[in-house]
Amino acid sequence: MRTSDNEAERVALARRIGDHLARMRSARPLVQNITNFVSMDIAANALLAAGASPAMVHAPEELDEFGAFIGALVINIGTLSSGWVDSMEAAARGARERGKPWVLDPVGAGATSFRTATVLRLLDQRPSVLRGNASEILAIAGAHGLEAASARGKGVDSGNSADEAAEVAAELARRLACTVVATGEIDVVTDGARTLRFANGSVLMTRVTAVGCSLSAIVGAFCAVADPFAAACAGVALVGVAGEMAAQDAALPGSFRVALIDHLASVGETEILTRLALA
Amino acid sequence: MRTSDNEAERVALARRIGDHLARMRSARPLVQNITNFVSMDIAANALLAAGASPAMVHAPEELDEFGAFIGALVINIGTLSSGWVDSMEAAARGARERGKPWVLDPVGAGATSFRTATVLRLLDQRPSVLRGNASEILAIAGAHGLEAASARGKGVDSGNSADEAAEVAAELARRLACTVVATGEIDVVTDGARTLRFANGSVLMTRVTAVGCSLSAIVGAFCAVADPFAAACAGVALVGVAGEMAAQDAALPGSFRVALIDHLASVGETEILTRLALA
Amino acid sequence: MRTSDNEAERVALARRIGDHLARMRSARPLVQNITNFVSMDIAANALLAAGASPAMVHAPEELDEFGAFIGALVINIGTLSSGWVDSMEAAARGARERGKPWVLDPVGAGATSFRTATVLRLLDQRPSVLRGNASEILAIAGAHGLEAASARGKGVDSGNSADEAAEVAAELARRLACTVVATGEIDVVTDGARTLRFANGSVLMTRVTAVGCSLSAIVGAFCAVADPFAAACAGVALVGVAGEMAAQDAALPGSFRVALIDHLASVGETEILTRLALA
Repeated sequence: MRTSDNEAERVALARRIGDHLARMRSARPLVQNITNFVSMDIAANALLAAGASPAMVHAPEELDEFGAFIGALVINIGTLSSGWVDSMEAAARGARERGKPWVLDPVGAGATSFRTATVLRLLDQRPSVLRGNASEILAIAGAHGLEAASARGKGVDSGNSADEAAEVAAELARRLACTVVATGEIDVVTDGARTLRFANGSVLMTRVTAVGCSLSAIVGAFCAVADPFAAACAGVALVGVAGEMAAQDAALPGSFRVALIDHLASVGETEILTRLALA
Repeated sequence: MRTSDNEAERVALARRIGDHLARMRSARPLVQNITNFVSMDIAANALLAAGASPAMVHAPEELDEFGAFIGALVINIGTLSSGWVDSMEAAARGARERGKPWVLDPVGAGATSFRTATVLRLLDQRPSVLRGNASEILAIAGAHGLEAASARGKGVDSGNSADEAAEVAAELARRLACTVVATGEIDVVTDGARTLRFANGSVLMTRVTAVGCSLSAIVGAFCAVADPFAAACAGVALVGVAGEMAAQDAALPGSFRVALIDHLASVGETEILTRLALA
Repeated sequence: MRTSDNEAERVALARRIGDHLARMRSARPLVQNITNFVSMDIAANALLAAGASPAMVHAPEELDEFGAFIGALVINIGTLSSGWVDSMEAAARGARERGKPWVLDPVGAGATSFRTATVLRLLDQRPSVLRGNASEILAIAGAHGLEAASARGKGVDSGNSADEAAEVAAELARRLACTVVATGEIDVVTDGARTLRFANGSVLMTRVTAVGCSLSAIVGAFCAVADPFAAACAGVALVGVAGEMAAQDAALPGSFRVALIDHLASVGETEILTRLALA
């Protein structure tokens, strides 16, 4: 394919993402999060900055009632415990039964058998999008007997590139009938039929907590206004472009984190169009 | 009333608030918080910045012993679960029995029946101040059969103006024999006999999490040195003026949040006097 | 001892700390934290900024499996509850049995009997380092019958100087066969045989949450590459120098907190060498 074709494709994608961003901000979808104690604050602020309305609700007594009026559900297993897993499963089942989109962030999948088992249990509720780092995605694929490359996770950090994960991710997406996002230096988005690679972002995004969690939450917000594959692309693009702009403002992690929230609010169609980078 | 009378009244109120602020900072009251996972960090930092001493203590084993030496208690039902409700009720009962002031922040009241029922259960322990957004206050009034306007909450965000809530809030304050604060573009403070409307603040305060939670916590700090109505006015004024100054420093939510904490520390009697705005 | 000797000693210590810092950053140790809801976010970001890899894992189902590949464990009892205490004890036992270093942060020891009892229970698992403010350390010493000065804690804040705590801390370190760090205006590090006093830092460190928690976490990171006494000295020096530099950048607590995270990343051997101050 010639460069001009690539550029035309990039611009067309950027325009679609810009449209999704405008529609998401206009709809201001209510996104329910059942997430970890580390990232609750920043994920909620990332959603607010991006233009959505976050709610952190996990009590069994109110899951069903609350689930009726959400736009999307996001489940993140960061600081896992058994009581919370029950709430996660009940909320995910509710979303599935109502036909509402939901996103699974399998933090630390592969690090312990409890985490891997929890992820497999939640996958039975058929998420719209599975968003993890490359090691997590490979570990899940391995648990499904699909893995070629070996997962090299260290705690909750990834030791694998998204490139290694791309082929496995596509196979996993077909198996699970969902969109899979494997993030890293290059972010892979695939629904098994289509695969896109995004090259925005900054290494500083690995030096602060909850960037991945925030991305999963923002993908959830886009799922309220677009199909899962388009929503995943829009979320990856928004967070990648905002991260890149934040890294131009701030070279150290404390300031970077503040700037990242700022740019989740400031990025619009123009910035997506100018900066979106595919690999 | 002539404008000069209004200005004289505004200045007199600002001076009283400035006094309360100086006394609160001098006393540095210990404020116990049983609050949600999203806002624990920011509420604690808001209390520290404002000049109080925060403690986040919720274990049943230590509530009674700890409650003996606090200046005030603040309960916020943001990330509700049944075990925490028991702790909230026990702590509130302890405060009531000891005659210590306590503040209730009914996050998401009206959004689910579990939340509304929890709020009603906690109201039996007679808070000194009830602080919510307009939708939450209207939902609580409705549960007491007082509601005229209809609540339009969306998740934990308010869909009603504080103006709509003002009359209902005053009636609710009389019914509950407490001070009610209904926040929004205009913040209403009423004890049923007196009603004041504050016009400080910035729309950016709705684009970051935990501003309302922080306000409730700061009202708790003022309750340790002033009566509930005066404490509520002082808290609303401090947070409103700090928010307004922060919005002059920062136009985007990440930076705004940092600036808000800065100004909770920097605002003194002079800033209150210069900037306090009544509606 | 002459001033030139003192300076030679200071420089030698600074060089050793600089070496530990370089080795810690190169090893990027996995540090498991079982900590409180207030400081999870900031402690994780402090560890990342300093150069370590944080993981917040507390579920009983995965403690043993996860504990096998950590570099160190940090336990902080800030927002205590009984279920979490069981996890803390199991994780600490695992670390002890595997010969892995672990750090105990006894937040609010002495404030309630539940806290003091929890600390005594955890001390049975023989931490490598006990890191608290002066009041907490005195309260623990008192519970061991060692106390001379009386603890003057107020909630979770310290009312005692580290100077008062120094002698008691050394005695406690001998009794517990661990390194004890008592922080305050002067930070005392002692293993019972050796005692050092560090004079870096800023009063702003008491105006934001989780600086102590972050210090304990960072001492844990150093424990993965150095003996407990050296690790405690390195952690105290890094956080003290970073805090001092942050206070030069920012005079108010919101900005200070951001700058502190920035400087945990920016401080290197040069800054330690130039700025390390002993008392």
